[in-house]
Amino acid sequence: MAEQHLPDVSQEATETKPEDLGFLADELPQAVLLKLLEGIDTEVVKDTEGGLKIGIGLDSSITPLRHPGLYLVQSVDFFYPLIDDPYVMGKIACANVLSDVYAMGVTEVDNMLMILGVSTKMTETERDVVIPLMMAGFRDAAQAAGTKIMGGQTVMNPWCTIGGVASSICAEKEIVVPGNAAVGDVLVLTKPLGTTVATLAYQWFNAQGERWGRLRAVVSVKDILLAYSRAMSSMARLNQTAAMLLHKYNAHGATDVTGFGLLGHAENLAKHQIGEVSFVIHNLPVIAKMALVAKSCGSSLRLLQGLSPETSGGLLICLPREQAAAYCKEIEAIEGYQAWIIGIVEKGMRTARIIEKPRVIEVPSKEREGYLW
Amino acid sequence: MAEQHLPDVSQEATETKPEDLGFLADELPQAVLLKLLEGIDTEVVKDTEGGLKIGIGLDSSITPLRHPGLYLVQSVDFFYPLIDDPYVMGKIACANVLSDVYAMGVTEVDNMLMILGVSTKMTETERDVVIPLMMAGFRDAAQAAGTKIMGGQTVMNPWCTIGGVASSICAEKEIVVPGNAAVGDVLVLTKPLGTTVATLAYQWFNAQGERWGRLRAVVSVKDILLAYSRAMSSMARLNQTAAMLLHKYNAHGATDVTGFGLLGHAENLAKHQIGEVSFVIHNLPVIAKMALVAKSCGSSLRLLQGLSPETSGGLLICLPREQAAAYCKEIEAIEGYQAWIIGIVEKGMRTARIIEKPRVIEVPSKEREGYLW
Repeated sequence: MAEQHLPDVSQEATETKPEDLGFLADELPQAVLLKLLEGIDTEVVKDTEGGLKIGIGLDSSITPLRHPGLYLVQSVDFFYPLIDDPYVMGKIACANVLSDVYAMGVTEVDNMLMILGVSTKMTETERDVVIPLMMAGFRDAAQAAGTKIMGGQTVMNPWCTIGGVASSICAEKEIVVPGNAAVGDVLVLTKPLGTTVATLAYQWFNAQGERWGRLRAVVSVKDILLAYSRAMSSMARLNQTAAMLLHKYNAHGATDVTGFGLLGHAENLAKHQIGEVSFVIHNLPVIAKMALVAKSCGSSLRLLQGLSPETSGGLLICLPREQAAAYCKEIEAIEGYQAWIIGIVEKGMRTARIIEKPRVIEVPSKEREGYLW
Repeated sequence: MAEQHLPDVSQEATETKPEDLGFLADELPQAVLLKLLEGIDTEVVKDTEGGLKIGIGLDSSITPLRHPGLYLVQSVDFFYPLIDDPYVMGKIACANVLSDVYAMGVTEVDNMLMILGVSTKMTETERDVVIPLMMAGFRDAAQAAGTKIMGGQTVMNPWCTIGGVASSICAEKEIVVPGNAAVGDVLVLTKPLGTTVATLAYQWFNAQGERWGRLRAVVSVKDILLAYSRAMSSMARLNQTAAMLLHKYNAHGATDVTGFGLLGHAENLAKHQIGEVSFVIHNLPVIAKMALVAKSCGSSLRLLQGLSPETSGGLLICLPREQAAAYCKEIEAIEGYQAWIIGIVEKGMRTARIIEKPRVIEVPSKEREGYLW
C-alpha cells in the first residue's frame, strides 16, 4: 500500500460527523433525502411503446431519446475519500459510479466525466501528489471498464471529493429494467458487506485510541489489516461482469448496495417492483471478523440490521430460482470471487426485511489481497 | 427578492479564500488545473469521418457513439452559492451547466442530473427552506430550456453546493465545432461582464464595513442594487437563443465566459483554432458602474484586464464580419437583451489579448429587472 495520507481531510470528516458511528458524513439520511426530493417533480417516464418506466429513485436514470430505440442510461455519484491510498480511492470512486449503470444491466459505458474537489486544507505538495494519484486510479478503472474520461469539473472544497458521471446510450435490450421480481425468485449478492466497518476498524487501529482498546479484545491486528485489504479490493472491483451475467441468467432486476446499506437498497428495489412481491433476506455475507467488530460496538454500526452504509458494494439481484446457482458459479469462474444466494422473493406488498437471526457468512481475505496490495 | 439568506456558507467561503479579491474559492487557478490535468491522458477524439476533434479543455465533451452519426455532448458543472436568493441561485446553476452545451451550438438537451451539497452548517430549518428553493429554481430553468431533471446526487458538505450535468445526444449538424475562426471574423459577446464584481459589491454593501466605506465614495446604493439585480438576471438567463443563432449566422466557434474571465476563455478558444489566428478585444461591455467599482479596488479585481471570473456568462462567438450585426440585432429582437461586437480575429499564433485602452461599454439595468425582482 502506498504511503500517502490524507490526514487533514479524514480528520475533518470525523470532526464534523454527527456521530462517528452509524452515519457517514457524505450521505444524507434516506428520509431527509426523500423529503428534499419532494421539491422535484419526480420524472416518471413511460416509453410510448409501453417499455421502460424509470425516474429518480433508482440507480440510474433512463431517458428515452429523440433517436428511435435509443435510451440514455446515466448516473452521477461522488463522495469523500475513506481510505488513505489515493490511487485505490480513485479506482473505488470510478467503480462506484459505474456500478449504478451496471445495476441496470448496461455494460457498455460510452464516456465518463470526473468530479473532483481539491481540499482547501491540502498543502501544495499534498495536492500535487494526492490529486494526480486519485485521477490516475479513476482513469485506470475507467479504462478497465472499456470506457474513457471525456471531461469533468474540478473545484476547491473543504473536503476532498472524488466521483463522476457515467453515461451509456443504448438499445432497450441492453437494459435490465429492475421491476420484474416474481414470487419464487431468489436474491443474490455479488460482494460481501462490511466495507464501512472494515475502514472504520482500520482507522481506529491507526488512531490507537480507546476504540482500538475495545476492538483488540475481539480481533487481531492481522484480522483488521486483512479486512481492510479485502474491503479495498472489493470496493475497487467493477460490477461489470455481474451486470453482463444479468442478461445471460434472465435476472428480474438488480440494484447496487451503497449508502443506505443492504436493507435500504433492498427496500428501494422492492418498492419499484411491478408485481406484489417482498424480499426476505436470510444470509449476510460479511468480510471476515467484521460481524464481530460490529457486535462489539453494540448496535451502533447496524451491520447485521443491513443498515451499515457500503461503498461501491455488490449487485443485489432477483434471479429465477433455477438460474441463481449457475449465476454464482459463473461469476466466480470468471472473476475468482464468490457470490451468494442471500434470500427469497415471496408474495407481499413491495417491502424488504432481514429475518430475525440471519446466518452470517464469513468472507475471508485471499492471500493475494494481502496488506501489501 | 426573497429574504432567505445563506450566512454561514458565504461567511465560510470568505474566510477560506486566499484573498477576497480576484480569486473565487470555487475555481482552481487555471495553471494549477492544467497541471493536474496532466495526470489524465487528454482524450482527443477524432471521428473516423474526419469530422469532430474535441477533448478535455473545451466547454463540453463530444463523444462519438456506437450509433452511426450520433454524438454525446455533455457537461458537468457545480459551484457554491454567490447570491442570497436560493431560488435564483438554482436557476443560475442550471443556466451555467446548460451554457457549456449551448457554447457548442447544441440547443436540445436530452436530460439533466442535479448535483447538490447540503451544508453541514445549516440548521434543519435553513435546510428545509433553502434546499427545496434551490432545487425548484434549478428545475424551473431546466423546464424553460425544454429539458428535465432525471436524477442526481445529494451529499452533506461544509459548503452548500449546486450544479449538475447536461447531456445531449445529437447529430453532427447540431454541433458548432469551435475551431473555425478566420482572419476578418469579429468577436461577439452576448452578456455583460462584471457579475463577480457586482455580487462582491453587494456583499460589501451588506457588510457595511471598511470596503463599503471606500465604495460609497464612487457609487450609490442604488447603483449597487441595480448592478446586483442585473447580475442576477444575467446569470439566470439561458444562452439557448444565443446558441440557436450560431447556426443561422454561420458562427465559426464559440465558448462561454465563466471562471477564467473573458480573456482566459478567449485564450482557450484561440488555442483550439485550426487556422493561424488570434483574437484582439477592443470593447468591454460591463454592468453599469462596475468598471468604476473595479478601478476603485486597484488592480485586484482584474475586471478590465478580462480576468475577473464570471458566473454563467455570455457566449463569446467568432462570426463572419458581415453576419455579426444581424446576429446581435436578432438576439436583441428575440430576448430584449443587447449583444456586442467586442473584437476582431486577425492573423496570429492562437492567442488572445485585450488592447491597452479598451472601450468600456456601460450596460445599464432595466427597470423591469429592478431590485424587487
